Amino acid sequence: VENARPEEWHAIAANDLLVMTLTPDGQGRPRRVVIQLMPAPISAGWVENIRLLARAHWWDGLAVVRVQDNYVTQWGDPDGEDAARARALPAGLRVMTEADYLTPVIRRVLNHPDGQGQYNNVEPNYTEPLRNNSFGPVQFANGWPVGHMTDSTGAEFLYPAHCYGMVGVGRNLSPDTGSGAELYTVIGHAPRHLDANIALVGRVIDGMPHLSSLPRGTGPLGFYETPAERTLISSIRLASELPAAEQPRFEYLSTDSQSFGLYADARANRRDPFFIRPAGGADVCNIPVPVRRVAAR
Amino acid sequence: VENARPEEWHAIAANDLLVMTLTPDGQGRPRRVVIQLMPAPISAGWVENIRLLARAHWWDGLAVVRVQDNYVTQWGDPDGEDAARARALPAGLRVMTEADYLTPVIRRVLNHPDGQGQYNNVEPNYTEPLRNNSFGPVQFANGWPVGHMTDSTGAEFLYPAHCYGMVGVGRNLSPDTGSGAELYTVIGHAPRHLDANIALVGRVIDGMPHLSSLPRGTGPLGFYETPAERTLISSIRLASELPAAEQPRFEYLSTDSQSFGLYADARANRRDPFFIRPAGGADVCNIPVPVRRVAAR
Repeated sequence: VENARPEEWHAIAANDLLVMTLTPDGQGRPRRVVIQLMPAPISAGWVENIRLLARAHWWDGLAVVRVQDNYVTQWGDPDGEDAARARALPAGLRVMTEADYLTPVIRRVLNHPDGQGQYNNVEPNYTEPLRNNSFGPVQFANGWPVGHMTDSTGAEFLYPAHCYGMVGVGRNLSPDTGSGAELYTVIGHAPRHLDANIALVGRVIDGMPHLSSLPRGTGPLGFYETPAERTLISSIRLASELPAAEQPRFEYLSTDSQSFGLYADARANRRDPFFIRPAGGADVCNIPVPVRRVAAR
Repeated sequence: VENARPEEWHAIAANDLLVMTLTPDGQGRPRRVVIQLMPAPISAGWVENIRLLARAHWWDGLAVVRVQDNYVTQWGDPDGEDAARARALPAGLRVMTEADYLTPVIRRVLNHPDGQGQYNNVEPNYTEPLRNNSFGPVQFANGWPVGHMTDSTGAEFLYPAHCYGMVGVGRNLSPDTGSGAELYTVIGHAPRHLDANIALVGRVIDGMPHLSSLPRGTGPLGFYETPAERTLISSIRLASELPAAEQPRFEYLSTDSQSFGLYADARANRRDPFFIRPAGGADVCNIPVPVRRVAAR
């Protein structure tokens, strides 16, 4: 990863970065979390809703409402289930369908017009020598861990994988698909049974411990039982809405790059002196996509 | 699980329960963690060392020294690497070999003489309809998640799997195998690359949030940078050494039982109304073995 060529790193657009500021911790230290949103076409409708909610400052003053050990940390409106007290959602949110959990695979790669090597469509990258996991071929597409399925007509689809740190959209029972107002991140072993059953919209790329080391809720499903236990959200903003000097900048290592292939191989076959038996394979969630912070413009 | 027959639940011997008491938290609340040690023959030498260390009260006053996000929480002697300051280990600790990471599979099941349905040897239980993961067949043996390998002579071996909450033995570089004095538990996505490279000796069955929600260390590998950041260990005791009235009692659901098979199938094929696409399979680490507390004798 350290030897990757500069062109193998892709800048993350400021419009794809969500900056979540929690109230300071017990020692008065600031708590900032940065989330990378998924680029289109994956989960595009929910991601657009999240941008709309961030621009409306909708989350400001709301809270982390649930921390369930080995599962998720979830934030949103504590009164969201109470129609009389719930904070009104902004106009213009799209209603997504369950079909939108899946992204059609287009087996053709187009260079993005901005020349940064992004893709307009989705081409799974079956980086060798990873092996398949329980759910069939699982690899990376456009910088994200994904699963893959083929329907009865032979059409191929991808869906993002629920790895540690991935961010998803809370919802009620099917056919509800969630708006994006209620979000969670995975803080334990990947709950892959949620794949293709719920929308994933991004991943935490900085400040994860601020969400993963919170006290676990003691109510059902890890919900906090009293308001005092909740951690408050000062603000959630798109980086593109922050003053230029405050915009964090990050890059990710292209999952189509040679360096990523070497990195994945090294994760699957640990060669440092600590290991006596390299596994010869790795779960997709044990190959986190490298992300690095870069200096402000 | 709730409908399992009484005889499908196995009592965990008091000699297989380790009670770890941390100093109270910031609000003065007690913090107690209970670890189930693995029964022989898996990792038996290390487990015997741990019993010896507990009987010597060796951990009392030592500390949680490392919390690395999405990896491990580790405890032991903060001065363990400093020969001049390290706490002396008790006499009689066994030195285990790397061969002991693997347990030979004996394809014959014997009832334990105590009549409780435990086995003296290891017979993997390939509970259907789980699928294999990256590392070949992975299932359960004697109540534990295990991996399986066959060597060049055709001999079969099992090794425990590094699932969330499993407890392992810290070690230095190969060929060191660790004594059992330095222990860790998994607090993130299962680091399966450690399987068969390090000894696993048990799992946290109660109080896991006391270890998983600790502040992450900011030094290399998540070690705390100052002693003040560490959480102190008041004591670690075998339940069998506690007064009878203080001994916690737990049972686990036999992984050979019909009820466990039904439970594993339900984990792999979620049928509740939340799910629209059951996965049809599950990672072994997403099927935690059910453990329940039972009333004192």
